[in-house]
Amino acid sequence: MNWLRATPEVKVVEVGPRDGLQNESELIPGEVKQRFIAALADAGFSEIEATSFVSPRWVPQLADAAEISASLQPRDGLIYTALVPNEKGLDLALAAGYRRVAVFTAASEAFCQKNTNRSIAESLRDFGPLIERARRSGAGVRGYVSTAWYCPFSGRVDRDNVRRVTHELLALGVDEVSLGDTVGLAVPTEVDEVLDVVLNDALGMIALHFHDTSGTALANVLAGLRNGVMTYDASAGGLGGCPYAPGATGNLATEDLLYMLHGMGIKTGVNLERVARASLELAGHLGRTLPSRTLARMKRTLQAS
Amino acid sequence: MNWLRATPEVKVVEVGPRDGLQNESELIPGEVKQRFIAALADAGFSEIEATSFVSPRWVPQLADAAEISASLQPRDGLIYTALVPNEKGLDLALAAGYRRVAVFTAASEAFCQKNTNRSIAESLRDFGPLIERARRSGAGVRGYVSTAWYCPFSGRVDRDNVRRVTHELLALGVDEVSLGDTVGLAVPTEVDEVLDVVLNDALGMIALHFHDTSGTALANVLAGLRNGVMTYDASAGGLGGCPYAPGATGNLATEDLLYMLHGMGIKTGVNLERVARASLELAGHLGRTLPSRTLARMKRTLQAS
Repeated sequence: MNWLRATPEVKVVEVGPRDGLQNESELIPGEVKQRFIAALADAGFSEIEATSFVSPRWVPQLADAAEISASLQPRDGLIYTALVPNEKGLDLALAAGYRRVAVFTAASEAFCQKNTNRSIAESLRDFGPLIERARRSGAGVRGYVSTAWYCPFSGRVDRDNVRRVTHELLALGVDEVSLGDTVGLAVPTEVDEVLDVVLNDALGMIALHFHDTSGTALANVLAGLRNGVMTYDASAGGLGGCPYAPGATGNLATEDLLYMLHGMGIKTGVNLERVARASLELAGHLGRTLPSRTLARMKRTLQAS
Repeated sequence: MNWLRATPEVKVVEVGPRDGLQNESELIPGEVKQRFIAALADAGFSEIEATSFVSPRWVPQLADAAEISASLQPRDGLIYTALVPNEKGLDLALAAGYRRVAVFTAASEAFCQKNTNRSIAESLRDFGPLIERARRSGAGVRGYVSTAWYCPFSGRVDRDNVRRVTHELLALGVDEVSLGDTVGLAVPTEVDEVLDVVLNDALGMIALHFHDTSGTALANVLAGLRNGVMTYDASAGGLGGCPYAPGATGNLATEDLLYMLHGMGIKTGVNLERVARASLELAGHLGRTLPSRTLARMKRTLQAS
């Protein structure tokens, strides 16, 4: 049975250092983050989202964005990205040397308001000049569409909203849109539904960002693969969730994603064991167990060796 | 996109009271088990595996099999099953009133030896008269094939072993074979591979029993659905694993399975919220959190109501 439409090679975007760590309540020392990112870079990712230039008032955990950015080690075939909420963030990111930035909006009006304090239309309006400037500086731009399936405040999100926001972001010049199941409620048939209205000519420009809040993340990846999507976001150890979405724990764990993809004969270029070691070291600093199933399974072997 | 070959109705076999609880190290009072099973019966399952008539020396947790069996409340449309390792176990199960029993063997020789102290051939030879007697008494028989993908002792299991053991069990008269991913290492393409060699004329007689040890259980269910398999085992809260398989934690949680199936428009006849309440009450007695993702997500709402 064929699960893939395209060649068996998938890109995994590691979002743990930003999307994962931003949800930690205790401030994590910069040195710990730097070692975490360096270990992930060693694992062979082609893209790592390193930090976010949002206001420290919003996300205190990422107040060290400049320090973290300065510590990033360049590597062949690896691009680091930084999240930027506005043009001020873009300035900081460009000054820090990023060649790729990410902007975020949502498919749900209620979520966009609570998360960014502006409407979807306002966020898109603000992104226009930001994206143009980024591109003029030679930087690529990724666009996140949160709550592409369900909103923690308003429930099921209209498929047409997702289509509209996605296509508007692409029209503004982002080179990729990552659709987020922010609250982790999507099931495979719903992944099909959204991709049915979104993909069209955008196939190569769509990434999927699932949360494992209901245990469905890998089943949803399977639905994505069947639809031809070849880029998936994941967070080492399953770190993080969304601070603005009540109960939304559980980014898809990179280890779980890699285990399934590799087992299916799909290449990612990433070394699962190295990712697991990076997660275990970070878990040691955090003093708790991370939610990845595969990490928990590998833990004993890795610690014994 | 079509995930189903057949009508959108799936049978979920609840194995928590047996396969789940047998792995608990602390003895659970009979009254707690009885309330757990009664709550699961209220949730609408058509089949619940209640206990096992194995030697208490092997599985002390199930030494109360007779007492538990005597407490089962009959309900329309619900059949209780008991695991029986041998003819003595069958006698006890039939005496306790069961109309359906289950036998277990494995596709891996090493696992069968360590788990049951006999070879696969010996287990099948012993099952012949057992199954015949069960059927003459009017009881149905389910056959478990453990380690249908990977063995904790000998690694990847030959697909032809799975085919052979499955078809021999069917030839001996079992009405259903449940293929177990005992160590939770299977990925969807491997589910396809095993079903490719097993299904043939056996389609309506194959059930799948996944473990979520690597986070792939629901993705594997999706592969099963695409292959036309319409019966899945699951354990409330994700209780249990296998005491003989090192590191093999994580039966697929019933709540996670129901959440995905119902979200995909597939009927099961089972009430998810009632299962979750049964799991939460049991978790309270066990004094720990159960591994189900969906249960963790639902917990706050259920406890508030």
